[in-house]
Amino acid sequence: MSKILILGGDGYLGWPTTMYFSALGHEVHTLDNFSKRKIEFESGITPLVHVRTLNQRVNIWNKNQDNKIKYYSCDLLNHRLIYDILEEVKPETIIHYAEQPSAPYSMMGREACFFTQQNNVMGNLNLLFAMKKNCPDAHLVKLGTMGEYGTPNIDIEEGWIEIEHNGRKDRVLYPKKPGSFYHLSKVHDSHNIEFCCRNWGLRSTDLNQGFVYGLDTKETELDEKLNTSFHYDHIFGTVLNRFVTQAALNESLTIYGKGNQKRGALDIRDTLQCVEIASNNPPKKGEFEVYNQYTEIFSINEIADRVLQAASEMNLNISKKNIPNPRNEMEDHYYNPKNENLKNLGLKEYKLDNEFVKNLISKVTTHKDEVDKNIIYPDVKWSK
Amino acid sequence: MSKILILGGDGYLGWPTTMYFSALGHEVHTLDNFSKRKIEFESGITPLVHVRTLNQRVNIWNKNQDNKIKYYSCDLLNHRLIYDILEEVKPETIIHYAEQPSAPYSMMGREACFFTQQNNVMGNLNLLFAMKKNCPDAHLVKLGTMGEYGTPNIDIEEGWIEIEHNGRKDRVLYPKKPGSFYHLSKVHDSHNIEFCCRNWGLRSTDLNQGFVYGLDTKETELDEKLNTSFHYDHIFGTVLNRFVTQAALNESLTIYGKGNQKRGALDIRDTLQCVEIASNNPPKKGEFEVYNQYTEIFSINEIADRVLQAASEMNLNISKKNIPNPRNEMEDHYYNPKNENLKNLGLKEYKLDNEFVKNLISKVTTHKDEVDKNIIYPDVKWSK
Repeated sequence: MSKILILGGDGYLGWPTTMYFSALGHEVHTLDNFSKRKIEFESGITPLVHVRTLNQRVNIWNKNQDNKIKYYSCDLLNHRLIYDILEEVKPETIIHYAEQPSAPYSMMGREACFFTQQNNVMGNLNLLFAMKKNCPDAHLVKLGTMGEYGTPNIDIEEGWIEIEHNGRKDRVLYPKKPGSFYHLSKVHDSHNIEFCCRNWGLRSTDLNQGFVYGLDTKETELDEKLNTSFHYDHIFGTVLNRFVTQAALNESLTIYGKGNQKRGALDIRDTLQCVEIASNNPPKKGEFEVYNQYTEIFSINEIADRVLQAASEMNLNISKKNIPNPRNEMEDHYYNPKNENLKNLGLKEYKLDNEFVKNLISKVTTHKDEVDKNIIYPDVKWSK
Repeated sequence: MSKILILGGDGYLGWPTTMYFSALGHEVHTLDNFSKRKIEFESGITPLVHVRTLNQRVNIWNKNQDNKIKYYSCDLLNHRLIYDILEEVKPETIIHYAEQPSAPYSMMGREACFFTQQNNVMGNLNLLFAMKKNCPDAHLVKLGTMGEYGTPNIDIEEGWIEIEHNGRKDRVLYPKKPGSFYHLSKVHDSHNIEFCCRNWGLRSTDLNQGFVYGLDTKETELDEKLNTSFHYDHIFGTVLNRFVTQAALNESLTIYGKGNQKRGALDIRDTLQCVEIASNNPPKKGEFEVYNQYTEIFSINEIADRVLQAASEMNLNISKKNIPNPRNEMEDHYYNPKNENLKNLGLKEYKLDNEFVKNLISKVTTHKDEVDKNIIYPDVKWSK
């Protein structure tokens, strides 16, 4: 059992991860700066079901456990505090979700863009210095995104690529073409982390994750008070979660543009499994490893079709509706990202099946009176 | 004649550039946040010859000119001010030197690293938003560095590279492997700017510059009160300028490590010429162009040998001295960066010749009593 510090423990994935590692018997510490809650307040966005504070959820979890989770309120921009926490905890693994996670938010304007790169890139720099000082052997498991790569016309390798050019070869960082200031922040993080591994001998695994879907994990199902945030809005809601909510409301599924855009996806339970696998396989000191973390590739139309199929079996009579794409992205493109690393380390993935989608629609339906329809339609335009 | 705004006009290159474009007849506006002056004060570093304030130098220049330079005190982190200046000036070209320019400074510790990426990356983001709002057709000429590329085992193309991988092709941003937090900040800038060109239709030329040497330009020679900052210290001094100062002092030239490291270099007068060529050739809207801006490649040993040769002809009896490399860099490596773009646009380069080096040693010798020997030897270690 090891000491694990989870950064961003209040989030959609951070909280389930916190419980998951605690349930496995690890000594878990978790922190958050609650910046996503603040954005929710300012944007008039609420998750589908009320989400208790991190402090409350930790207390509820701890009530029935000998293995207590320890909780901190900490902003990575407060460098003294993160230095102190790392000195006190001396974690063996740091799982870093503590970043502003929304691409549309980052495109709302200067202030939102500035906040995103400040919080993410500058916060991550403080973390790297704190690790160098207080736990240089720790393994940094950093959440990145498949969106860092964009949609190149060549196969997407896992972080590094062997290039042959004018008769010579080198292994280089895979070239990135991110599609928002949020995605850019993750590219900057990757470059900063790779340098700190190379220069200081830190070790890190960068998990370039696809979009995550789902509501529950084994731990959230123990008690409804332990639920995580399910967002169906245009800022934080990932695409399948949004479509399922529209289905539950008996509304058309709004497809951005043609809907031929392809993306990697995974079940929230696979996020936990992937992060566990990464944590169990730290790179050597000085190494920066990258895993592409998704289990299946879908076009947006294919995701919508999966939801339509499930909805029709539930006697919901809905359809797809193409709307102008608020994003600036290729709608017809080659897409062949590799994801062998996690599979080779033993990932047994959940596949998106019809029963799962029906179950998700049912769950959302029980809360459908609380859905605010006004926050589903996208109002952040990339090229405005 | 066009309206040109120069950011970082107080610097080693910013000030000569400001005068150069004014002498060409352009309407020139210049600004600075004086952060480099502050670092000089804090580090106990002074340039070889006293450098008047930007305000003083602008006044001296303007005294004999009908075409007056307009001067502003502005920090790019003050987004309202840069918005206002762009609204008032509506520049056609923005030449952006306004970044913390020292790799060793960025490696001094957390605070210096944080300041570097904050000042450079976040300041540049504000600039991009201000351009989008107030002069979206303007041409951003951005100073980057050859150090963004590192020393890959393949030819270094100019910003973009055509990759063939598994039988498919794409043109992608050239993969970067920068060697310090400063160089990283320029990589982050390049990614942010490329996205703003692609997404908003801005236009930019990114000039990846080698190390610059020399003291004078046509304009600084008009009046000694118009001089630019010549740094020989380990923080801001570029390698040839440092060696020349050591020669003037009759001291050994301190070579970092083996000295086989190769770098691109150029004369300060060629920086002006390159920036002028770039300014005269704006890309189409939406395009992000990259030029590698150097004229010759030298190993550190070759530079030292040039200085030794000139020194011996001046009856200075000095030698090379290898010291432990404070940096973490490859000392034996392939290095073949391309620099066709600027040549194809008409660059007529100065080559480093013996007379130039002797002349530089003579000039430095006239100020040798003012040299502080304590600030030459490197005390910032990359892996400390």
